[in-house]
Amino acid sequence: MSEQATADLWPGESTEAARRLLLAAVDSFARRGFHATTTRDIATAAGMSPAALYIHYPSKAALLAEISRTGHQATLDLVERAEAGGDEPVAQMRTLVEEFTRWHARGHTVGRIVNNELHALPEEDFAAVAALRIRIEETVQRIIARGVEAGAFEVPDLRTAARAVTSLGVDVARWYTDRSSESPEELGRRYGVLVLRMLGAKA
Amino acid sequence: MSEQATADLWPGESTEAARRLLLAAVDSFARRGFHATTTRDIATAAGMSPAALYIHYPSKAALLAEISRTGHQATLDLVERAEAGGDEPVAQMRTLVEEFTRWHARGHTVGRIVNNELHALPEEDFAAVAALRIRIEETVQRIIARGVEAGAFEVPDLRTAARAVTSLGVDVARWYTDRSSESPEELGRRYGVLVLRMLGAKA
Repeated sequence: MSEQATADLWPGESTEAARRLLLAAVDSFARRGFHATTTRDIATAAGMSPAALYIHYPSKAALLAEISRTGHQATLDLVERAEAGGDEPVAQMRTLVEEFTRWHARGHTVGRIVNNELHALPEEDFAAVAALRIRIEETVQRIIARGVEAGAFEVPDLRTAARAVTSLGVDVARWYTDRSSESPEELGRRYGVLVLRMLGAKA
Repeated sequence: MSEQATADLWPGESTEAARRLLLAAVDSFARRGFHATTTRDIATAAGMSPAALYIHYPSKAALLAEISRTGHQATLDLVERAEAGGDEPVAQMRTLVEEFTRWHARGHTVGRIVNNELHALPEEDFAAVAALRIRIEETVQRIIARGVEAGAFEVPDLRTAARAVTSLGVDVARWYTDRSSESPEELGRRYGVLVLRMLGAKA
């Protein structure tokens, strides 16, 4: 994961030690999976003792929850910014897909963990993350619905179309690697074009 | 996982005991993840002793490899059948997307394991599965390329378009559940429509 992506995920509010632990947790979970990772693995990777880890996080599940919550919150922010940034559904959707795609390409390591280990979250954290996911999906649905009303989009089924839009972006985290031939920005632009077509936008 | 999906994945050639072990491995990996699952867990779930398991598979990695290989082979078969089933690219692509989507919705448990644990495969098995994935992707690219030549499709970038088609289908395994509102067949039909639009097919 690049330094930039890390800074994007855990801006100012966290202490340096907490950010180091989150980064170590991401690396450990990515390498071994959540279940096979111990708090000792994470502490060691962060250059700390397990006791020092517990000052910041009570468990490895708490680290996973923090990674998952901040990742989803940042994604929701990005999606809401795309909606707020204009009142023309085609432009809103293009920005949304470009940014959503870029985000999942750049943050593919975190994205993979967050998506693969969702069911390892403690119940309350799972519910919090599920609520963020619903708000992301609803924002996408809202933009499509307004586009349909305005005659800019034409879709056979609103929910399936919204699902396809988010699915395409989320799955970038699964397949994208730093060796992929397109940059995150270029992929975002191409996906923007494909999604607008999928929604029946007039060229 | 439904009985039907299991029978589709491991037809005739496997012994009943081997199929029971594969099914137990799928359940265990889905529940705990590959790394945290022991061969004892799998043997117990299959109602066997660990010693009996080793008669069929030398390790849990061998079970994962078999699940992954058979899953990818079945997916490739389906994609190649769609190509062979007609010579009109629009019809080939519609069938391909319908079947590919249906397959990932029905087999979402296996699909999730296969996609999440790809990097847990021993090197040789990873290479075999990667080769199957490339053939799947190439089949999709071939159909799109023929459609572009025939003037039936119009895409800005062939590789990105093919990637989007497979990505959309593969990601169904991540989000689809038995409680999803659309049946696998209905989702397949809807995705068929969305993908043909994405490829610029004339309505």
